[in-house]
Amino acid sequence: MVKVGIVGGTGYTGVELLRLLAAHPQVELRAITSRADAGMPVSQMFPSLRGHVDLNFSHPDEAGLDKCDVVFFATPNGIAMQQTRALLDAGVKVIDLAADFRIKDIPEWEKWYGMTHACPDLVAEAIYGLPEVNRAQIKNARLVANPGCYPTAVQLGFIPLLEAGVIEEGSLIADSKSGVSGAGRKAEVHSLFSEASDNFKAYGVAGHRHLPEIKQGLANVSGHPVGLTFVPHLTPLIRGIHATLYGRLKKDVDLQALYEQRYAKEAFVDVLPAGGMPETRSVRGSNICRIAVHRPQGGDTVVVLSVIDNLVKGAAGQAVQNMNIMFGLPEAAGIGMIPLLP
Amino acid sequence: MVKVGIVGGTGYTGVELLRLLAAHPQVELRAITSRADAGMPVSQMFPSLRGHVDLNFSHPDEAGLDKCDVVFFATPNGIAMQQTRALLDAGVKVIDLAADFRIKDIPEWEKWYGMTHACPDLVAEAIYGLPEVNRAQIKNARLVANPGCYPTAVQLGFIPLLEAGVIEEGSLIADSKSGVSGAGRKAEVHSLFSEASDNFKAYGVAGHRHLPEIKQGLANVSGHPVGLTFVPHLTPLIRGIHATLYGRLKKDVDLQALYEQRYAKEAFVDVLPAGGMPETRSVRGSNICRIAVHRPQGGDTVVVLSVIDNLVKGAAGQAVQNMNIMFGLPEAAGIGMIPLLP
Amino acid sequence: MVKVGIVGGTGYTGVELLRLLAAHPQVELRAITSRADAGMPVSQMFPSLRGHVDLNFSHPDEAGLDKCDVVFFATPNGIAMQQTRALLDAGVKVIDLAADFRIKDIPEWEKWYGMTHACPDLVAEAIYGLPEVNRAQIKNARLVANPGCYPTAVQLGFIPLLEAGVIEEGSLIADSKSGVSGAGRKAEVHSLFSEASDNFKAYGVAGHRHLPEIKQGLANVSGHPVGLTFVPHLTPLIRGIHATLYGRLKKDVDLQALYEQRYAKEAFVDVLPAGGMPETRSVRGSNICRIAVHRPQGGDTVVVLSVIDNLVKGAAGQAVQNMNIMFGLPEAAGIGMIPLLP
Amino acid sequence: MVKVGIVGGTGYTGVELLRLLAAHPQVELRAITSRADAGMPVSQMFPSLRGHVDLNFSHPDEAGLDKCDVVFFATPNGIAMQQTRALLDAGVKVIDLAADFRIKDIPEWEKWYGMTHACPDLVAEAIYGLPEVNRAQIKNARLVANPGCYPTAVQLGFIPLLEAGVIEEGSLIADSKSGVSGAGRKAEVHSLFSEASDNFKAYGVAGHRHLPEIKQGLANVSGHPVGLTFVPHLTPLIRGIHATLYGRLKKDVDLQALYEQRYAKEAFVDVLPAGGMPETRSVRGSNICRIAVHRPQGGDTVVVLSVIDNLVKGAAGQAVQNMNIMFGLPEAAGIGMIPLLP
Repeated sequence: MVKVGIVGGTGYTGVELLRLLAAHPQVELRAITSRADAGMPVSQMFPSLRGHVDLNFSHPDEAGLDKCDVVFFATPNGIAMQQTRALLDAGVKVIDLAADFRIKDIPEWEKWYGMTHACPDLVAEAIYGLPEVNRAQIKNARLVANPGCYPTAVQLGFIPLLEAGVIEEGSLIADSKSGVSGAGRKAEVHSLFSEASDNFKAYGVAGHRHLPEIKQGLANVSGHPVGLTFVPHLTPLIRGIHATLYGRLKKDVDLQALYEQRYAKEAFVDVLPAGGMPETRSVRGSNICRIAVHRPQGGDTVVVLSVIDNLVKGAAGQAVQNMNIMFGLPEAAGIGMIPLLP
Repeated sequence: MVKVGIVGGTGYTGVELLRLLAAHPQVELRAITSRADAGMPVSQMFPSLRGHVDLNFSHPDEAGLDKCDVVFFATPNGIAMQQTRALLDAGVKVIDLAADFRIKDIPEWEKWYGMTHACPDLVAEAIYGLPEVNRAQIKNARLVANPGCYPTAVQLGFIPLLEAGVIEEGSLIADSKSGVSGAGRKAEVHSLFSEASDNFKAYGVAGHRHLPEIKQGLANVSGHPVGLTFVPHLTPLIRGIHATLYGRLKKDVDLQALYEQRYAKEAFVDVLPAGGMPETRSVRGSNICRIAVHRPQGGDTVVVLSVIDNLVKGAAGQAVQNMNIMFGLPEAAGIGMIPLLP
Repeated sequence: MVKVGIVGGTGYTGVELLRLLAAHPQVELRAITSRADAGMPVSQMFPSLRGHVDLNFSHPDEAGLDKCDVVFFATPNGIAMQQTRALLDAGVKVIDLAADFRIKDIPEWEKWYGMTHACPDLVAEAIYGLPEVNRAQIKNARLVANPGCYPTAVQLGFIPLLEAGVIEEGSLIADSKSGVSGAGRKAEVHSLFSEASDNFKAYGVAGHRHLPEIKQGLANVSGHPVGLTFVPHLTPLIRGIHATLYGRLKKDVDLQALYEQRYAKEAFVDVLPAGGMPETRSVRGSNICRIAVHRPQGGDTVVVLSVIDNLVKGAAGQAVQNMNIMFGLPEAAGIGMIPLLP
Repeated sequence: MVKVGIVGGTGYTGVELLRLLAAHPQVELRAITSRADAGMPVSQMFPSLRGHVDLNFSHPDEAGLDKCDVVFFATPNGIAMQQTRALLDAGVKVIDLAADFRIKDIPEWEKWYGMTHACPDLVAEAIYGLPEVNRAQIKNARLVANPGCYPTAVQLGFIPLLEAGVIEEGSLIADSKSGVSGAGRKAEVHSLFSEASDNFKAYGVAGHRHLPEIKQGLANVSGHPVGLTFVPHLTPLIRGIHATLYGRLKKDVDLQALYEQRYAKEAFVDVLPAGGMPETRSVRGSNICRIAVHRPQGGDTVVVLSVIDNLVKGAAGQAVQNMNIMFGLPEAAGIGMIPLLP
């Protein structure tokens, strides 16, 4: 049994980690911390976990995280970088669901996140936890930077095209739509039901923190820098990201075959049959990314549709997938749930 | 392995049965029928099942249902009663998720359902599949009438009060609210998104088919006929029933203890701590009924709050629970999923 | 033209007042205050008002409220009672949309609202602004206490029965459901989209601040104290309240005629034909209360269904209706909008 | 008073026309037809209109449409073309909210709509009712083809760029999202609440009927054919379209000034201040199109955000705007409503 601790368990990625880990056959949940709610039973805050999670939230100092095999950080940005070194030194592996270790270019990170990085050397060591690209390195990693939700959906959608070198790399467009849980369980006016329901809007058009993360990832698979216009939107779902990706074809290629071959061995990427259009609900509650590729009217614009559950493949599920890889467990252990539809 | 067939798999109870049975460790899914869609892969209609269900819909005549150990009917009312005798004669057990075998009083059934019953003798034999009341008989049943969604939530809420004889039986009120999936996957104007979203309404105030079912069940546990005002409402959720139940106390009693004791051994009924108020999302996708009991301002009106997922404990999950009991499997096999929250 | 000021314009009742008053043919909007946002154009916070409202939020001290004919308080509880006397002394009429002047019993108010009342004498003077009951007094009032949202829907539903003395007054039940905008534009976790969407729950079962307000109002029309069980619920709508009311008939009566006669002259109460079931969306954005009365199975339980838009007839619209009455304008001036459906 | 008839009043554009026309100060509603529901009071089907519309649905043959000044067709495609000539011959003006007269290229129309056109000569005569482009011709038109919902949002967004000749015309992208009311009040499974709620998906990627309409309109303002990739999506709103438009800049230009100048005199197009991001709810229930223009990271990709209410500026409101122009009324008569927010 892998002994697991979670830092910061009161947000949506925290409760989702709990849902997955509580049912994981090879995991022993040891501690979940919350400074503000220490002592409160987890199932009091999240009644959905009654009967499944008996832990109380514990104070970080008393959680015994250094006795765990792995610690997940489900914290706001800037927390994990303060605590990771001590855990690594104690022999504990770390998976950070926040952004502290995602961007290799430290000044770029500091610009977008507005703080000084506490441990650039660990950024250098950290492996970007997108298994479909970095599985081998994740296997041996002490520290995994779990990808953001938009970056997961957008990268998985563009990767086959960029690896094959069939689209112009300088003019990619990622028109992305996210459910409201992506904004977290923070009390903010713009996330209120009465603001976000029955409404659709773009946000962050001038620049979103996931932009440099996506560009870094796409440049890695492409071998060249990429130009990307990334427009995120808020749509009235709880869970789900739908990325609609546009690229200009440089050469003719069997797009359907390209995608099917690229992901043939991936348990968590499902390429739909030609003509398919994935719905976000078709992955609700599951770790699957479903993708379809189109070439409307046979023109030179390729359109890729990519959907994930932002809390699962876009956060907690992918984190568990990374844990499974790091500990030599079956990659799908504990994350093989069938999506909830309707 | 229990060999399972499903008749009528294209509605919401059908796809939910598939979600549960495909992951059930002791079930082998043999056939799922649909006259209209015979030949189509199930996962084409329900992409959420891609990779989990490889069956095609089959024509009822070619499905080999008589080779199954148990057949679930997820059909409109009036179908199961036509086909059940042949299956029973072939040694196949039957669980009907529709209403054909729920009401013992045949003329009453015929009045509410507007058809002549095809097999009154089988109604007499059928066991009403509410395990919290009829577990022993279900164990030996050939034919189980799976309860309706409202009746499950309302009965589980009233049972402790009626068994204990502490409320006036003649003036019960069940103010019930259902998500829209309760109306099924039928193309009807009143179930359209643009009709049902951002809207709340009562319906069936003059009389709803679940009224006689609930009254029959409550009379059974009470030992006397009951008077019940049942007002169903449509609320813009996909899944979930919330029953708010009102009764007038005849004697003083420790209500909290009454409920906790009644359901102490029930895996799928969770009595919240005193003062609790269950949310429908706290059972979303799970087989749990969560209940809280209140006595506002210490008056003589008791208020019970009871929530279920109408497609799980209110339909497919309870049907699997009944199957588990009928076949001597652990009662929670395949239906122990943690609710999906948020 | 009536010169109007609004104190506290950044919440939902504030923006709704602006929507109504900006289009009111006999109103001149003079000032809208917000301490926190003084200087900001109103239409920057609420882009829906671009082109319709040119005011900036002003600091309360600089708003010139004492030059207005009437001031609306769209503030949290406890603000209006601090400022009303000075305005009245300056000859300004006041309509308070909060609860400061609703409850005549000061200790009762102080118990429920948790503060000491600043001006009990003004509570004695204030007229409870339910035009269907108090139209004559409103006409001459300097100070109107605008009713709460639940109290409006519940009182209008029960009034005909209580005035006619045909139900038992000691055992009334009001099972009420509100959209999320009723919780206001406050950043609170329980009002987040990801918490309130696709979810239904009861709250405040042990006691809700609208309970004493409703009981006071019903006692007034009844002539006796009433016993009331009031259970509010949160339903995933933006706007709308649906009250399902239960009472026990003491005598036989033509309920449909009773309701139609009681409200025959009321412009903003619409009694549906027999058998009707009002939907919240049928009053969305309008000042109408729609009511239907039922007697299921001809029993002795009467069921009344009453719907309003909580922000209009339950708040801003009723406030404008009161203003119209106070200033001798046509009662429907500026609030005759047709509901928005779908 | 303009005497108005409506053909086909049981859909969402029909009820929206009724909402607008019933409150229009210079309109007399004479008839609204429905073959299936002749004789039924309009307010029975749409209780939101109780007290505002006293008409019954009438049979088309008995509606006296030839006595009207103008007839609106709110019918499925293919109906208006059968009846328009007789009305025009009788001196009645016609505004078709369906697609019968939108596409000038008859074979193209017949390909996309799958039927033979009944009156190509009237297509030639019809004026495309986008007032911001064709106001002068609309003024004198007998027959107006009211634009589609997507085409309105997309064209208004692209027009300034194309008229100014500042973007590459061959590679336009319109990533468009629509609320579910765009699918009409038809009983279809994919529009059910339980299918469309909490879900996001693309559809019609291979080709959507609005594609040729948009391309025709953009070619007209551009003076050249345009290349357009149009991807519509379904988002869980009732009302609203959000078009996110992408183009590649050919020359440097002050985009903000370009948009502000183009629409300076337009009452129903609102260009947001620089950096703005319009929300669909900011136009809910109103005839406004709100637009913002962005140039992320100062690159050569321009991003335009354009929102409308699909039932108002995208259908019924624009139709009334056209009527106002055709009859010399103030262009904003009856359609100056403030959006409903929240």
